Formats: sequence, structure tokens, C-alpha cells
Amino acid sequence: MNIITIGRQFGSGGRELGKRLADTLGYDYYDREIITAIAETSGMNAAYVEKALDSSDWRNYNFTFMHSFSMESVMQSEKVKLLSEQRHVIDGIAAAGKDCVIVGRNADILLERYHPFSIFVCADLDARIKRCEERSTEEEHLSRRQLEQNIRRIDKNRALSREIISEKKWGDAASYDLVVNTTGWDLKELTAAVSEFAVKFFNRKDHSIQS
Amino acid sequence: MNIITIGRQFGSGGRELGKRLADTLGYDYYDREIITAIAETSGMNAAYVEKALDSSDWRNYNFTFMHSFSMESVMQSEKVKLLSEQRHVIDGIAAAGKDCVIVGRNADILLERYHPFSIFVCADLDARIKRCEERSTEEEHLSRRQLEQNIRRIDKNRALSREIISEKKWGDAASYDLVVNTTGWDLKELTAAVSEFAVKFFNRKDHSIQS
Repeated sequence: MNIITIGRQFGSGGRELGKRLADTLGYDYYDREIITAIAETSGMNAAYVEKALDSSDWRNYNFTFMHSFSMESVMQSEKVKLLSEQRHVIDGIAAAGKDCVIVGRNADILLERYHPFSIFVCADLDARIKRCEERSTEEEHLSRRQLEQNIRRIDKNRALSREIISEKKWGDAASYDLVVNTTGWDLKELTAAVSEFAVKFFNRKDHSIQS
Repeated sequence: MNIITIGRQFGSGGRELGKRLADTLGYDYYDREIITAIAETSGMNAAYVEKALDSSDWRNYNFTFMHSFSMESVMQSEKVKLLSEQRHVIDGIAAAGKDCVIVGRNADILLERYHPFSIFVCADLDARIKRCEERSTEEEHLSRRQLEQNIRRIDKNRALSREIISEKKWGDAASYDLVVNTTGWDLKELTAAVSEFAVKFFNRKDHSIQS
């Protein structure tokens, strides 16, 4: 079984690259499906689940005090439950044994024992802002400054949510098998380049020994 | 003209990958040749030139005081001269107009206007220590702890020497076009994967517009 995990800077095109990789290689694709699965199991709204998992305000929470009964502790324990559920869902995807691409959710860390091909997707800030502008609807028109703030905030939260479970820092070059910068690429052409790299990764000598 | 630049963590195999890429693609290869050229022009010993360029002790030097006549200022101005000479040598390589691979010396920054394919090569710490052990001679046998200290010191100096000339941080994922982790790869197989990626990079639609 081959697993490709995609971490990404917001606005870099990582999700699109992941989808295209899955299509090209004939792999299953998981992205929002994970949130939906958690929402179904927990009986919560998918948007709420996503917001709770991606927020960073629980980072400084001291887990040893989780037995206290403040409102905060109730919320924190809910997040801990959601994280645990997320791990369960992602484990389930891997246990199904089918080749797949998983976008986000620190799947490379959670599935380390399966030796996934872990990719991080990034792009220059200008390219990311442009991509966000193109995707935004007319009603939600944001200024360049607002878009930049959004990008920084979301990326910061992604970095923090990774910090909780791993020493491999988010966005640090050495934390991944491959980092690709999408700036200046047509994503279709980039997909061809990355998918060929992935095939070589899974076929390399050492991989057959490890897994 | 296609230029590939290689930044690398110490012990990651970046130099070997660069040499193999040049051989595979039929490109010229520059590494220690740059130091040799600077040494020849400046009339200094190559080992001294390399040490001076790679040391970090001049980082906090305040350039506005360079006209003072302390011993320190003489040494600093020597380093500034060497850096300027390095830029001159690297500019000369690019001006020659031949496809090439340049290892180290922040060539990706110095030659940004040529749109090089900038690669950063890294590896897990254990893999890097192992590579250093394999390369070291019996006389210079270093403990694991000493090797790790060496690796950290050299990488720190590389990061600092980049910081002087660019906001693109050394080893930061988004500072390069491609980051490859050599851990678990046979470098020959990895070279094939990276060279095919490089060919696609130079053939991509946007590149023909940019350069």
C-alpha cells in the first residue's frame, strides 16, 4: 500500500495538487472526507468540527488539570476527543489498505509507521495571495492585506496543531520527503513531475526493506 | 541556459547529488572550483578563503564602522572583499552561458535573475551522522556527539551567511523550488528522479515566459 500525505501552506494549491495526484495515480483521495467522518461519529456539525480542530487556543492548556469542571475544560476535553477521533478516522483509512492521498491533518505524523511519501506544498506569498483572490467570491471580497492576514493566521494554526504531536516542524524543509514550490508552475504539469517522483519513491530499494 | 543551484544540510549528500545531476544532465559542475578561483584572484590560500567565507563571526559587524582601523575591521573588510569576489566568480559562471550545477555559496540568491532551479538537500540527523562517519578517516575519528556538534555548527554558519544577503531563510521549505530528503534513498536513484523533475521545471510553460 502506498500512502501520499500532503501538508501545505494556505493558498499554495496543495489541495488541488493532491487531488490531481490521486487522479493521475488512481489512488483514493481524502481531504474533507475526514472532517465529515468525524462529524458523523461525534454527531457534531462538520464546520464546527473543522473549526475546533484547527483553532490554536487550546495549545497552552495544561492537560493535567483536565479533571476540573470549568467551561474551558469541557471545551478542551471536546477538542481532545475530536483529535482522538481524527486519529481513529485516519488510522481507519490506512487500515483499509488501499493506495491513497491524504491532504492535511498531519497524516504524515499519524501514519509514520506506514512510511508514507510525505509532501509539503508551498508557494511565494504573492502567488498565494493571487490564488486566494481568484478563489474568493465577489461577496467575500477581501483586501490584499486581509488575505495576507488570513494566510498567516491559518498557517500559524497549522504549525501549532502539528507542534502538539510532533517535533517535525510544520514547513521545515527536513520534516518531509519532498517539498515543492508551486510558484510559476501549471499544476497539471507539476502533478506529472511529482507523480513520477512518487512512483520512484515507492519503488526505491530501501522502501521495500522498510515496509 | 539552465542553472541548478544546490543548498544542503551538512552530511545530507547534497554535493554528491549535485555532481551526479551534472553528470546525468551533461551540465558543468561548480563546487570547490569557486573557492579555488577566489583564492587565485586574491592570492590567498584556498583553505583560508573557505574558512573566512564560511565563518560567522563577522555577522554582527557594523558595516558603517568599517573605516575604523582596528585589527577587527581589517579582517572584516577582507571578508567583505572575499564575498564580493565570490559574487564576481559566480556571476562569471552564469555569464558564460552554459548549463551548470552550482553547489553551495547561496548561488540561488546571487543568480536569482537567471531563474535557476533551486534545490535544497536535507536528511534526517541519524542519516547525516552515518554519512559523516563513513566519510571520516580513521585518524580523524570523531564521536557521535562531536559529529552532531560539527553538523549543527556548519549548518548554523550556512544559515547565517545566507541571512546577510537574503530574506529567504536557509532550510526554510518555501525558500527553494524543490527540497529533497535523501534519507532512505540510493543517491543514484534519487538523481534520476530529481533530474527528470529538473527537466520538467526548465520546460514548464511559465519558465519560457520568465526567462
